[in-house]
Amino acid sequence: MIDTIGFDGDDTLWHNESLFSMTQERFRALLAHAADPADLDRRLLEAERANLAVYGYGIKGFVLSMIETAISVTDGRVPARDLQSLIDFGKAMLDHPVELLPGVAEVVDALSRRYRLILITKGDLFDQESKVARSGLAGRFDAVEIVSEKDPASYRRVLDRHGVAAERFVMVGNSIRSDILPVLALGGHAVHIPYAITWAHEEADPPDAHYRRLDSVHDLPPLLASW
Amino acid sequence: MIDTIGFDGDDTLWHNESLFSMTQERFRALLAHAADPADLDRRLLEAERANLAVYGYGIKGFVLSMIETAISVTDGRVPARDLQSLIDFGKAMLDHPVELLPGVAEVVDALSRRYRLILITKGDLFDQESKVARSGLAGRFDAVEIVSEKDPASYRRVLDRHGVAAERFVMVGNSIRSDILPVLALGGHAVHIPYAITWAHEEADPPDAHYRRLDSVHDLPPLLASW
Repeated sequence: MIDTIGFDGDDTLWHNESLFSMTQERFRALLAHAADPADLDRRLLEAERANLAVYGYGIKGFVLSMIETAISVTDGRVPARDLQSLIDFGKAMLDHPVELLPGVAEVVDALSRRYRLILITKGDLFDQESKVARSGLAGRFDAVEIVSEKDPASYRRVLDRHGVAAERFVMVGNSIRSDILPVLALGGHAVHIPYAITWAHEEADPPDAHYRRLDSVHDLPPLLASW
Repeated sequence: MIDTIGFDGDDTLWHNESLFSMTQERFRALLAHAADPADLDRRLLEAERANLAVYGYGIKGFVLSMIETAISVTDGRVPARDLQSLIDFGKAMLDHPVELLPGVAEVVDALSRRYRLILITKGDLFDQESKVARSGLAGRFDAVEIVSEKDPASYRRVLDRHGVAAERFVMVGNSIRSDILPVLALGGHAVHIPYAITWAHEEADPPDAHYRRLDSVHDLPPLLASW
């Protein structure tokens, strides 16, 4: 009998990756004179990976990685004003309205009346808190947990802190690696709702009786009722 | 009867402001050709204040504010390589060894045997978690709480979460505004240990029987025993 639902935030409750994609598109346009798009994407991804251990996840680290990449691909010739544009892109991301995914407002509202809801998001504390506040959903959640990494140990801490047994818990999220596998490893339930159809098969579905994949959050209440 | 001690991290348990000061000194040197130090400091402070609402506290936001200031004071003529230097200063800060203040290791160790200890720090989640881990103190604390703002509401949440009554709680920290006043407002105890002698009188000592100011963490155990 499940009594507690964990929801991921970015790309599960509200759009996030689309903001990064949009900004990366502007980044490519800004540096079109210096690098071809595919090469630029590759260099940016390298910088992001190299910086992850020092910056963690989030928009500020992304902006710093864009700046480094712009300097590096132009051999230091990028004008400072273009780097200011990258800073401005980042501020626009941080300031962007939080756009809920279709169905989220109704489903979260309905589920909040029957289950304990915990929002479990990864990333920058300040930015995530700001998004939760702007989402209009904060009042529907019994708790908000912002973690720097989503692994079995961090889920274990969240469940212990709230006195939730893993077998009575289901995590709902868009990432197999962050939202699904660590929770299944603890003996919990997990529901994968891919953000975009092209990502649906990023990783194979885990063969686990406690796991389901849904196309829309609308299908969540009936699934939970059947479990 | 106090049974739970909250410790601030930055500039209470370990050096932090000195890292910012050192970096700001390097920033002044880098831009000495374009701005006089006092003017540069003022412009940087303006940028930091303007950016606080969008970046929150932390080193990544500080670096982005330095970059903006460098671009602005040079009217966009700062070479990109100098901006890369600012990024590198930031990485050096994030990667800098955590240096405990004198007496902290012994006092925290001794207090951990008689009290419940909670580390309550403000700032960037990823950076603060990394500092806690590198401090070698994590095992002495019963809990670590990283918050985006230190006000009465955030202390209230931390105390409720751990089932601590305010009157049995004492907060130890270097900032009157963040560590002392909000805790006194809840009816808790507070001990101010200024980080540097010049800052001791940043604000007047609050007239409150639950408040004390100490010159060194060494004086904390006898004070607690007397309270």
